[in-house]
Amino acid sequence: MPITGQLLIGRARVRGQHGDFHAIDARTGEPFGAAFGGATMADLDRACALADEAFDAYRESTLEARAAFLETIGRNIVAIGDELIERCMAETGLPRARLEGERARTVSQLALFASVVRSGDFLDARIDPAQPDRRPQPRVDLRMRSIAIGPVAVFGASNFPLAFSVAGGDTASALAAGCPVIVKAHSAHPGTSELVGLAIQQAVQDCGLPEGVFSLLFTSRRGIGQALVADPRIRAVGFTGSRSGGMELIKIANARPEPIPVYAEMSSINPVILLPDALAQRADVIARQFVASLTLGAGQFCTNPGLVLAVDDHGLHAFERAAEAALAQVPAATMLTPGIYASYLAGIERLEAHGDVERLAKGVAGERLQARAALFATSAEAFMADPSLREEVFGAASLIVRCRDVDALHRLLGSLEGQLTTTIYLDASDGEAARGLLPTLERKAGRIVVNGFGTGVEVGHAMVHGGPFPATSDTRTTSVGSGAIGRFLRPVSYQDFPELLLPSALRTENPLGLTRRIDGVLGRQG
Amino acid sequence: MPITGQLLIGRARVRGQHGDFHAIDARTGEPFGAAFGGATMADLDRACALADEAFDAYRESTLEARAAFLETIGRNIVAIGDELIERCMAETGLPRARLEGERARTVSQLALFASVVRSGDFLDARIDPAQPDRRPQPRVDLRMRSIAIGPVAVFGASNFPLAFSVAGGDTASALAAGCPVIVKAHSAHPGTSELVGLAIQQAVQDCGLPEGVFSLLFTSRRGIGQALVADPRIRAVGFTGSRSGGMELIKIANARPEPIPVYAEMSSINPVILLPDALAQRADVIARQFVASLTLGAGQFCTNPGLVLAVDDHGLHAFERAAEAALAQVPAATMLTPGIYASYLAGIERLEAHGDVERLAKGVAGERLQARAALFATSAEAFMADPSLREEVFGAASLIVRCRDVDALHRLLGSLEGQLTTTIYLDASDGEAARGLLPTLERKAGRIVVNGFGTGVEVGHAMVHGGPFPATSDTRTTSVGSGAIGRFLRPVSYQDFPELLLPSALRTENPLGLTRRIDGVLGRQG
Repeated sequence: MPITGQLLIGRARVRGQHGDFHAIDARTGEPFGAAFGGATMADLDRACALADEAFDAYRESTLEARAAFLETIGRNIVAIGDELIERCMAETGLPRARLEGERARTVSQLALFASVVRSGDFLDARIDPAQPDRRPQPRVDLRMRSIAIGPVAVFGASNFPLAFSVAGGDTASALAAGCPVIVKAHSAHPGTSELVGLAIQQAVQDCGLPEGVFSLLFTSRRGIGQALVADPRIRAVGFTGSRSGGMELIKIANARPEPIPVYAEMSSINPVILLPDALAQRADVIARQFVASLTLGAGQFCTNPGLVLAVDDHGLHAFERAAEAALAQVPAATMLTPGIYASYLAGIERLEAHGDVERLAKGVAGERLQARAALFATSAEAFMADPSLREEVFGAASLIVRCRDVDALHRLLGSLEGQLTTTIYLDASDGEAARGLLPTLERKAGRIVVNGFGTGVEVGHAMVHGGPFPATSDTRTTSVGSGAIGRFLRPVSYQDFPELLLPSALRTENPLGLTRRIDGVLGRQG
Repeated sequence: MPITGQLLIGRARVRGQHGDFHAIDARTGEPFGAAFGGATMADLDRACALADEAFDAYRESTLEARAAFLETIGRNIVAIGDELIERCMAETGLPRARLEGERARTVSQLALFASVVRSGDFLDARIDPAQPDRRPQPRVDLRMRSIAIGPVAVFGASNFPLAFSVAGGDTASALAAGCPVIVKAHSAHPGTSELVGLAIQQAVQDCGLPEGVFSLLFTSRRGIGQALVADPRIRAVGFTGSRSGGMELIKIANARPEPIPVYAEMSSINPVILLPDALAQRADVIARQFVASLTLGAGQFCTNPGLVLAVDDHGLHAFERAAEAALAQVPAATMLTPGIYASYLAGIERLEAHGDVERLAKGVAGERLQARAALFATSAEAFMADPSLREEVFGAASLIVRCRDVDALHRLLGSLEGQLTTTIYLDASDGEAARGLLPTLERKAGRIVVNGFGTGVEVGHAMVHGGPFPATSDTRTTSVGSGAIGRFLRPVSYQDFPELLLPSALRTENPLGLTRRIDGVLGRQG
């Protein structure tokens, strides 16, 4: 399938006329392949009009039809074959095994949402039957279900070119909810985006769905993404990226005549707490696990362990020595884009130049555009005194903060902003300290990991990939796992409806076989 | 129990020093009773500090303890006796029967949330068990529950001095979720607020809960409410009131270093659609039901039917004549405050002065400060041409819009902003027209009523008292019914936790007997 650089607008492939740009080879920084044409405002308007037209029909498509559509997308992605992996390797610098794994994750994520759709639990169907004899007033018949919120704009992430991009978690959960999706492709992997976009466009056609269910826009200029969020036909936004980028979209969404929710996953340094007895017992093992997590994928994970908190004792010294030794062996790695590499370098230089920060270790030097992992240390006092030390350095850099005791560590933890994950390493004898920290950990993060790192993000039912601001803009939500569908739903009540007018989810005989809440009690009553 | 005008800050009663104000007798417009002292910034700070201190303990109180607390509040409110009703009648001008009914509703609402807490379903407990043998990577043990979001600020409504005020739906659902609550009392019923606040304060003590679980602030000046929303210890806001008031709080919440959700129920004109065959069959009956709903409680309901859409035919003429006749018999009624009365008069005068609006009828004249119901009519063309005709006139006024045909009616409906409710009157033979309108009705409103009016708002499991903006600021939520608790929760994942550190909701043996989602499947497995 040749990559043409065309926009996908409904069933059409359209040459964007608003400025060309090229894919960049992550290893060389050089442009390659066909040019991508940037979307015009007319292209955007057409995509939004099609999405709005498709909305009422698509949101009432049967659960089976929607589940099959999600599975078809997965099959079509697999059918692209190795072209997808090779293109993605060139655009991102990520290795083959990682991208094959990410493809499998993307497909299984679509399959998970297909199962979520089939179960129908997300409809949250409820019936409070009429009580005509109730005094002083009879009770009406009231039924509730969740419906899709409307067309959704998705901004793909640079760091997961498959699993958090065109057919990633935001798209999968929005489509599962019954929302048409317009994706603004990330310019760091446009060819990958086109290939995956074509797989979705084909699935729309394979499944006989309205063409407006999906569109894909390219742009390398400011304006189109902002206009997409401002368009009155767009009803929610999914975004994964920088804090400044997310905040800009949130500002636009809040300034609309009708504000809409923006689910932005933005910034997290994912503090790791190493309790004294765990360090006393196995500083070496923990250090090796830490360095492996820190340097995975050149550290380009939202859940990368960017901050380590521990009591300054012998155990921590042993941990630091072991981490230094492990890190010094880590080969340099190509980053996703020359821009991300430059930002990483600047972050490292800022830490290296900091008077109160000590550099403990640096990874092996590599080629041009390859980043070296780095480990730093500072004191709790210095950390508390300088807010810049809390800023995320996107990449394989981490800062150890040496605390006087567990209380000092607790205060420091309490001063942090919201996080996607926190990790706590503990031994049985650390139980009391861990119990004391737990309420603060819960206040600060969407996921708390014991004796492991947060870099693996399971796509399941119990996953929360979210957390207090600025980890995400909406702490009530997750962007990974089956709970992600809830972001794109809203409840509607139907009062005293005749059976024939009721949506099938709420008909008395329960034709969909749903688990429903009858007078508050869950069951599968017909 | 003498009303003293003191603030309730934790367990203390404190004289506010930031300006005095008095309760106003709604019938006379004259101040009466003890002066209320306005809260200072120091009072606010103390209330927030206590709430934050109470938070971790209160959110982990047992389900039974929290349920019993909610029930104790209800009992303490009933125990106030007739003093509450009489004070409330004087402050609001609402009649005894209405307020006795509203007290019963308030108590049963607390009981509903007690049952919601006891069931534990709101915890949304999920377990994805470990799969140590999974390839290529073992699966971790992942568990999830919802936790309370943090201390909540509640701004009571003027129009439901019990059910949407100090111990109303926002307070009940936030307390049920495990959130401490700070109420900013509505200055239209401060004595009522103090009495109910004392009932809650007493319940906190009766149940041995941390004192910071509840505080009540009075103020008659700008600034304290705004500072409450801006305080970093406040994590969510519940508000029922005007669009301008709600938008001001939303703006403050969005501008915080850490933005927080504001659940503002603001403005709704609750369109009523009368389909042709329903009107042909029973215009008289519908007209009488309409006038009864319109004039209930002097029209001071968020769900008041402020807009009627119908095809301009014989049936509509008959409806108009019958509504005129019924409305002309309706006695004038005291409104909640002189300010609300003045706004209503201004709204009526604006409609009466409008060149394209015809006044059909007016209710019986009354005493000073008593409002007369009013019914107006206009054409679809005039309505589409003048946005001011869409503005809510809070009170017993409604505007009939005569449409050429059902298509014109549908277009007009599609042009409206979000609504709490829409009503559709239909006959069996109107089914096709109703089916055509349904997708638009779903897009526009949180609750759709067939052959009835939305003014009765059942407190149950299937109720949605919400809807697209500006009906509410967050269309994914309801402020009435068991679903309201979801506004004050956020999910947290626990990865590879030792049993002893897990919250009881997530322990393997299921000590709370919860219905949990194990690998995505709901059940009560231990």
